[in-house]
Amino acid sequence: MENRISVAIDAMSGDHGLAVTIPAAIATLEKFDDLKLLLVGKQELIEEKLTALSDKTRQRIECVHSSEVITMDESPTHALRTKKDASMRIAVKLIRDNRAQACVSAGNTGALTAISRYILRTLAGIDRPAITVAMPTIKSHTYMLDLGANIDCKAEHLFQFAVMGAVLASAVDGIEHPRIGLLNIGEETIKGNDQIKEADHQLYASQLNYIGYIEANRIFEDIADVIVADGFVGNVALKAAEGTAAFIRSSLTQAFKRNALTRVSATFAMPTLKLISDKMDSRRYNGASLLGLQGIVIKSHGSADHLAFQQAIEVARIEAIKQVPQMIDKQLETILLN
Amino acid sequence: MENRISVAIDAMSGDHGLAVTIPAAIATLEKFDDLKLLLVGKQELIEEKLTALSDKTRQRIECVHSSEVITMDESPTHALRTKKDASMRIAVKLIRDNRAQACVSAGNTGALTAISRYILRTLAGIDRPAITVAMPTIKSHTYMLDLGANIDCKAEHLFQFAVMGAVLASAVDGIEHPRIGLLNIGEETIKGNDQIKEADHQLYASQLNYIGYIEANRIFEDIADVIVADGFVGNVALKAAEGTAAFIRSSLTQAFKRNALTRVSATFAMPTLKLISDKMDSRRYNGASLLGLQGIVIKSHGSADHLAFQQAIEVARIEAIKQVPQMIDKQLETILLN
Repeated sequence: MENRISVAIDAMSGDHGLAVTIPAAIATLEKFDDLKLLLVGKQELIEEKLTALSDKTRQRIECVHSSEVITMDESPTHALRTKKDASMRIAVKLIRDNRAQACVSAGNTGALTAISRYILRTLAGIDRPAITVAMPTIKSHTYMLDLGANIDCKAEHLFQFAVMGAVLASAVDGIEHPRIGLLNIGEETIKGNDQIKEADHQLYASQLNYIGYIEANRIFEDIADVIVADGFVGNVALKAAEGTAAFIRSSLTQAFKRNALTRVSATFAMPTLKLISDKMDSRRYNGASLLGLQGIVIKSHGSADHLAFQQAIEVARIEAIKQVPQMIDKQLETILLN
Repeated sequence: MENRISVAIDAMSGDHGLAVTIPAAIATLEKFDDLKLLLVGKQELIEEKLTALSDKTRQRIECVHSSEVITMDESPTHALRTKKDASMRIAVKLIRDNRAQACVSAGNTGALTAISRYILRTLAGIDRPAITVAMPTIKSHTYMLDLGANIDCKAEHLFQFAVMGAVLASAVDGIEHPRIGLLNIGEETIKGNDQIKEADHQLYASQLNYIGYIEANRIFEDIADVIVADGFVGNVALKAAEGTAAFIRSSLTQAFKRNALTRVSATFAMPTLKLISDKMDSRRYNGASLLGLQGIVIKSHGSADHLAFQQAIEVARIEAIKQVPQMIDKQLETILLN
């Protein structure tokens, strides 16, 4: 029965630590029989939380002790150099040691990227991992990368992101020829910088299903399955979208609280508004992939609640089943040979 | 009675041309007695639309003939080199010739920037004009610049934007020490690139009320009066915000149309939803300033309706009254002397 998917969990990570990671881990185990989890952190604290479990679930959990925790504001270099026994590092090492196929952490993004790169290394042909998130669109979702791991990207980096994003969309969503767009600015004075123009040429010349430039106002229109951007730019687009959604939500709440009449109208509108806010709910899209590593590393939002963290574990499970890193490796080889 | 503010209008510009610019011009004249407008374009077509006007309004309109029009998809260089009699160019020239204090165009942004730079020149100490828009926030608005005229900005450009934005917020909104933020990415691996770090140092060392880095999800939180960004990044933030708002709007509309019950609930919610969509209405924020020129040039959205175009004319009027270019010039001198 060891055909199970094995995922390591940085149980100490995130704003809420064990209070979120353990319930999420248990819920995911109960949902998927094919899953096994390695919970990494302070063993006695973790085990305390597992006492009430059924044997069926408990036997698919392994506790892996680690004595240190990387904090959210720690410098990635410091974390990498000094915290050799951090739960995050041990979780990533379990992949290298073939004890896990993937790991999930809600910890410090910079540290997770640095540690994953150091321990797992990137795939041949990939310079740095790219942070990738599925963003909601009117019909489905689109994978956007990079969202902040790489700034000042050169054309070849953008090209690598395109290949990785295409493999992800194919593997996870079964899209045969994923549509790839390159984030650019529009009608203004100078369209794009040199890196973007060069990446545009390379993408047109490739076998990828490249559809050309996309402006940030069309991210949600479902015109591309993959949107490629420099990490700085992608991060700004993602954050601006989050900020706008929050702004509209708070404006709506305020407006509906205005007086007795608007409060009544809110009661009527609420089920519909809930539909929308569920659609925009970042928890449903939690779990960013650090694509390009020799292993699957999933970053959860630090503020994730247990539903959101569970979503991140599910992303790890799917990518392990679909063998995403191996697929990227194969695809890169094919493209580099051509 | 020639203490009037005189604004030149590129009457041929925008997706709708005269059908929008003329009604907007008339409405603005009727609203402000201190205003005089120079309507630039095909004279006989313009005059046809003015026949029904009262003398009181008509005498504050001057028609200035021009035979050419710059199209939306024309290359800025081509427009600058070949269309010497374009309505946009003549409108800008009226400023240089001291016949107007400001001009408004809904035409090609690239061409408007190139022509304005060529005809008006930038202020001493400013390399390129920056596109600046007032974005709504929970309490009021924040000026964001640059939104696409300058890409690959160096630290000194970002610094110049900060000075110009601060002057605008002081002059237009009467804020004594405008809070200035620098758009950056957050917790991720590498905070900012070299240009941003250098601009951050320069801003901290200056007399400006610099509050540090701002992430794009906080643009709407009213924590800064001015947000400074590279033109590529600023443009992406603006467009991502527009796209998100449109996405939420269309999702809401769809959800409320779902069935009889949701349609009824929509009737109740509509007045409140309208409040929000008015708040987010880009028409209320139409009129981007090309700051840093020796003159006031306001860019309207190409798709502006007459209300939106009127808003852009009002922005031109205010900046003329407040003498924004002169104020920027003075402020730059003070800062460069220190």
